[in-house]
Amino acid sequence: MALYVQKFGGTSVGDVERIQAVAEKVKSFKDRGDDIVVVVSAMSGETNRLVELANDMNPEPSPREMDVLLSTGEQVTIALLSMGLHKLGLEAVSYTGSQVKVLTDSSHTKARIKEIEVTKIRSDLDHGRVVIVAGFQGTDEDGNITTLGRGGSDTTGVALAAALNADECQIYTDVDGVYTTDPRVVENAKRLDCITFEEMLEMASQGSKVLQIRAVEFAGKYNVPLRVLSSFKEGPGTLITLEDEDLMEQPVISGIAFNRDEAKLTVLGVPDIPGVASRILGPVSAANIEVDMIVQNIAEDQSTDFTFTVHRNDYVKVLKVIEQVAEDLGAREVKGDNSICKVSIVGVGMRSHAGVASKMFDALASESINIQMISTSEIKVAVVIAEKYLELAVRTLHSSFGLSAISD
Amino acid sequence: MALYVQKFGGTSVGDVERIQAVAEKVKSFKDRGDDIVVVVSAMSGETNRLVELANDMNPEPSPREMDVLLSTGEQVTIALLSMGLHKLGLEAVSYTGSQVKVLTDSSHTKARIKEIEVTKIRSDLDHGRVVIVAGFQGTDEDGNITTLGRGGSDTTGVALAAALNADECQIYTDVDGVYTTDPRVVENAKRLDCITFEEMLEMASQGSKVLQIRAVEFAGKYNVPLRVLSSFKEGPGTLITLEDEDLMEQPVISGIAFNRDEAKLTVLGVPDIPGVASRILGPVSAANIEVDMIVQNIAEDQSTDFTFTVHRNDYVKVLKVIEQVAEDLGAREVKGDNSICKVSIVGVGMRSHAGVASKMFDALASESINIQMISTSEIKVAVVIAEKYLELAVRTLHSSFGLSAISD
Repeated sequence: MALYVQKFGGTSVGDVERIQAVAEKVKSFKDRGDDIVVVVSAMSGETNRLVELANDMNPEPSPREMDVLLSTGEQVTIALLSMGLHKLGLEAVSYTGSQVKVLTDSSHTKARIKEIEVTKIRSDLDHGRVVIVAGFQGTDEDGNITTLGRGGSDTTGVALAAALNADECQIYTDVDGVYTTDPRVVENAKRLDCITFEEMLEMASQGSKVLQIRAVEFAGKYNVPLRVLSSFKEGPGTLITLEDEDLMEQPVISGIAFNRDEAKLTVLGVPDIPGVASRILGPVSAANIEVDMIVQNIAEDQSTDFTFTVHRNDYVKVLKVIEQVAEDLGAREVKGDNSICKVSIVGVGMRSHAGVASKMFDALASESINIQMISTSEIKVAVVIAEKYLELAVRTLHSSFGLSAISD
Repeated sequence: MALYVQKFGGTSVGDVERIQAVAEKVKSFKDRGDDIVVVVSAMSGETNRLVELANDMNPEPSPREMDVLLSTGEQVTIALLSMGLHKLGLEAVSYTGSQVKVLTDSSHTKARIKEIEVTKIRSDLDHGRVVIVAGFQGTDEDGNITTLGRGGSDTTGVALAAALNADECQIYTDVDGVYTTDPRVVENAKRLDCITFEEMLEMASQGSKVLQIRAVEFAGKYNVPLRVLSSFKEGPGTLITLEDEDLMEQPVISGIAFNRDEAKLTVLGVPDIPGVASRILGPVSAANIEVDMIVQNIAEDQSTDFTFTVHRNDYVKVLKVIEQVAEDLGAREVKGDNSICKVSIVGVGMRSHAGVASKMFDALASESINIQMISTSEIKVAVVIAEKYLELAVRTLHSSFGLSAISD
């Protein structure tokens, strides 16, 4: 007997049949004697439909009213799932974010959860009921409806699991777990049985879009065991937890993440004086452009080169900003390249293993792939390379680090 | 400067363009300096879509979950209308029934309003905002979402107008007022400038489906001036108020109502003993069949005939019930007729005018229309006739009582 919070995304509740399948999955746990709290998203397509309606109504819809509108999406799903559970003879009760309540700040369309009241939920669980909570939404102190932003249902699930001290937060999705890398790129990519929160964060932010980053951070902070599973097929999925104490058995590298949509900018011949980095990146950030990697080489002849990457969509915009900045700074030249990509190896194991980075560089060199930028963290080494080498690089690294064999 | 509660039904907010038209109508009042509270229904078709989803999910959906589901319909409309008002430069804020809050009892899908909190609304009005409230929905003491049943948005409007002591509750619909009779039957039927609550109740319950009966009762009870107007064309509509003191100017008859879907049952040769009526109608009521007109003739030879009407849909069901009852009572025979209709003349003026009923009977006789049953109230005379005479009877009465000339 355990308490599980189970979160089902939009695809898993995309129509009446799929909602019924979710009800049956919930019943299989309930039949085992587990207590279940279900968090659901809007039916797939529904949020887009509502956003379109809003945009037709007003090209700049008020965030408060947007939240009133969008929160109806999950409200429909909770009611339908409850009806589906009743049909299977289970007792079930649904709650909106306001009813539970999921208390958030007042940042409409991107609110943060402050607290969740669990008295009602506990009482329902004690009465043997399945409790269904609308994901993605909450209420502020004044009773205004708020939403957590796209993908916020994962965060609702984790926050509920933390508040209820659940045994596990299970995120049901359309993939059956977290993989060593994208199986569309490496055919023999393997599902990971286990991954740490830190690794998952590096994997997720690098483009393995299985889970919301915020949800993983939240789970890590409150140490909520998080499991990614498939709604559509059976299997243990991938468990995301604190670092395994049994580090010996952990592979050095857990996975390979990559990001295709990057662009690189270099300001050449920047005067090597204090404050230059902020004078370059200040205007970029003021233009609401997010910067990813930043590299500054050592200075030669009182001048240096400053390179950073941005999302490819921002390339044209950032180029304009930077050309002005370069002129103001008296820099020699601005160079840009929007046909690059980023490839990272991720693993808590590399903390205790020397030579991981050089093994990565060797592997890439053996395929004559030129490394344009390098950035490292405790559990990650990321390189920027020409986009055309992406698949080759990922496959080479996947095989060099023996990832294909992990689950064998 | 006045305070108006304006209610717009599903057809009036059927798509983005219509919602924008509603926003413009609201603005025209706001520009004059009026304070406006808007009550809206779900976009037309939306409630049916949700009901279908529910039925696909579970043929017997739980009423509580049905309310969670259906209440999303109005929630979408309030957000969109608010966005539409913002586009016109107005300040506007939307509230669900739970947010306002519209406190109801816990009878899911047919809840009754107990109280409406107006503090928030008053404060918003004081700040110059248009307040938009979701019709049809509320919350019970435990925070469960409730709905008032179909057409409940009218009731929300009237209840809000009562709670706010508004100058008028304006019900915008797809007709431009209350007519002397259905214009599809009598071409020169006239819009009434004014009608009393009592008359409106008689007209509405007789099948002039402009307004919810409950809303009219509510308005009468709290003396909220109620106006029916068209969303789509300009005009004063029909004002529904307490009886006009200036009775001299009132016509004897305000309108002619009719109801096509009736069926008649007669139990012949019933023993004339006390308690017979309840022994006949008890089982009918126990079978959840609503009885409309009831007529019992004087007794002859210690036996009497007992006749009543029901909705035509209940005819087969009621016949079975009554045949058993007749046998138990030792009645002679049961006769039924499901090709009848009911035609009523309605008007507070008939209180002070003798001979209204006989004028009605004369008019029908002049067309050789046989009257099968008669039932009267203070402000109504209703007759049952063969269905085939319906149009003829309505047109004859409309002209006999000079209704075609009212607004000329």
